[in-house]
Amino acid sequence: MRTLNVELGDRSYPIRIGAGLLSDRAQFAELENRKIKIVTDANAGRRYLPTLLYTLALTPEDVLVLPAGETQKTWTSAEKILDWLLASNFGRDGVLIALGGGVIGDMAGFCAALYQRGIDFVQVPTTLLSQVDSSVGGKTAVNHPRGKNMIGAFHQPKSVIADINTLKTLPPRELASGLAEVIKYGMLADAEFLKWIEQNLDKMLALDAEALTKAIYRSCELKARIVAQDERESGPRALLNLGHTFGHAIETFTGYSEWLHGEAVAVGLCMAADMSTQMGWLSVDDALRCTSLIQRAGLPTRPPVGMTPEDFLELMGHDKKVAAGKVRLVLLRKLGVSVLSADFDEKALLATLKHFTTP
Amino acid sequence: MRTLNVELGDRSYPIRIGAGLLSDRAQFAELENRKIKIVTDANAGRRYLPTLLYTLALTPEDVLVLPAGETQKTWTSAEKILDWLLASNFGRDGVLIALGGGVIGDMAGFCAALYQRGIDFVQVPTTLLSQVDSSVGGKTAVNHPRGKNMIGAFHQPKSVIADINTLKTLPPRELASGLAEVIKYGMLADAEFLKWIEQNLDKMLALDAEALTKAIYRSCELKARIVAQDERESGPRALLNLGHTFGHAIETFTGYSEWLHGEAVAVGLCMAADMSTQMGWLSVDDALRCTSLIQRAGLPTRPPVGMTPEDFLELMGHDKKVAAGKVRLVLLRKLGVSVLSADFDEKALLATLKHFTTP
Repeated sequence: MRTLNVELGDRSYPIRIGAGLLSDRAQFAELENRKIKIVTDANAGRRYLPTLLYTLALTPEDVLVLPAGETQKTWTSAEKILDWLLASNFGRDGVLIALGGGVIGDMAGFCAALYQRGIDFVQVPTTLLSQVDSSVGGKTAVNHPRGKNMIGAFHQPKSVIADINTLKTLPPRELASGLAEVIKYGMLADAEFLKWIEQNLDKMLALDAEALTKAIYRSCELKARIVAQDERESGPRALLNLGHTFGHAIETFTGYSEWLHGEAVAVGLCMAADMSTQMGWLSVDDALRCTSLIQRAGLPTRPPVGMTPEDFLELMGHDKKVAAGKVRLVLLRKLGVSVLSADFDEKALLATLKHFTTP
Repeated sequence: MRTLNVELGDRSYPIRIGAGLLSDRAQFAELENRKIKIVTDANAGRRYLPTLLYTLALTPEDVLVLPAGETQKTWTSAEKILDWLLASNFGRDGVLIALGGGVIGDMAGFCAALYQRGIDFVQVPTTLLSQVDSSVGGKTAVNHPRGKNMIGAFHQPKSVIADINTLKTLPPRELASGLAEVIKYGMLADAEFLKWIEQNLDKMLALDAEALTKAIYRSCELKARIVAQDERESGPRALLNLGHTFGHAIETFTGYSEWLHGEAVAVGLCMAADMSTQMGWLSVDDALRCTSLIQRAGLPTRPPVGMTPEDFLELMGHDKKVAAGKVRLVLLRKLGVSVLSADFDEKALLATLKHFTTP
């Protein structure tokens, strides 16, 4: 078990990463004598809820189980959670636990941020994606038909418990989806780590506990370092969105249902690398190294068939990273060094869009 | 014109108070070259929107007009505002102006807090209540059938422009409702100010600009001093809720529609003073002074007919100030000195409830 402390002044909190944490009461020591409610989805609930209820000595009455899937991450679902908390007369001193993947974490965190103007919450991420990505940053949100995560709040958890045993029951597509974010951290901030991923990808795909613990720890550490400089996302934090502007366009195009988030990001990473090459920054070899690693992880490297450059341009116009009407993109100066750029060459963008949408 | 600076580190902002500010472009200097949207309600829109649009050189397309009234302060109305902002492709660098009373301020502020996880907003309060009460504290919220302000966020405005000329068109009941909060600040934090209110009440009722400016300035100043100690409401800030636990019960009982917020608070202030007397803290004379001042302001001093002690107890159980299942009340040690108390004598509460509900 490894613990990473996210330093954010009086909002600092620990991330605990290891095998079997869900059945270890000591990991939840902060919750002694607190009223607790759990929000989960049908998948995570079926797999992990019995263990967690036993560990925390809770009953099914203390749990709200939502249908699984990104399509549930709506204003309406958030209202359902808030109604339930109010109907249970849940106090301001209670703690809300999010048990599940990113959808549950984002939505339960959003409700914890809003319930009586903010209550404590604990993240128990059960997918690789949420373990590396939602554990750090305090971002919570719901989707809107006009864009992903368009409505949200910043709300830091009190602690994050990442039990890597949960990855054993994770469908292979979801494991790969999490690996996309791990690869992203290497690409954007740490070329050495990217090399380590290339060398240890097979171990991770085989669910080696040590390799997974290290990958999650290092990803969270890199993210925490960037977030600490910029908690409210006005500057450097935008770098974390490498591949995400393209990725969100794909998710919006496909209605958030067919593609997993990490799959869309994977394609976005390939597109960002390609465009960085078009800009003359990244070598063609390095862009190919990234694409090849993404492919080895079992991830897609091309957008859905039928998506045009015009689709990308229109959907990218709705991205939160649009400042003063201008699309800003995260690109790579070289492997491990990213920049947020608004004054990129339009031609490079169009070349990349064309390259990736030509059959 | 007087300016009060609310000191909150990098979230500090000015409150400008005076006559004619809505038509003075210089008051909105921070908004030069920013994209602006305005949320208002039918009443405030009819009265003040033409002036503000002219001052800011905006068009009706930049405005969303909602129906007036506390019943509109819902999750559903918030969704309407967010939908409108998204449909207009409003960027993260835009500024949302709330033009109207507390309902509009709370709801537009709530949406500004959530839109793309937080954008700038400016409060233009047009009622005495919102000028003294919503200008400071950063509280935003919507109501829920199970309680008032149960869903919300903390989000500080970039500036507050309180034009006291707007009070000239304010219905007398709403002016009195604002005076309830002014009286509250005297009772809870400044016995000298309370005396000043007693001496200047008639001037304020006659809309004397100097008296109103002073009353708003001092109320905001007292509130800001308390909020600065406790931005997220874990301690001293609860004192601001003097009269509000009783008041919220009345508002919930009457379905947020018949009673104005300040009217319910006025009764709550009388009840809190009475209970402080039952506790042996406040002299009977001082409690009567408060009740008499509230009555002179044209405010009610008794709850609605038909409301029972049991109604109060049940509805107070839903109040946000309930910690660990125990009702906590703000009471007066003496005039100008308030305390938050959970270990009050139950008998004193029951005596007050009985006293105020007996025909």
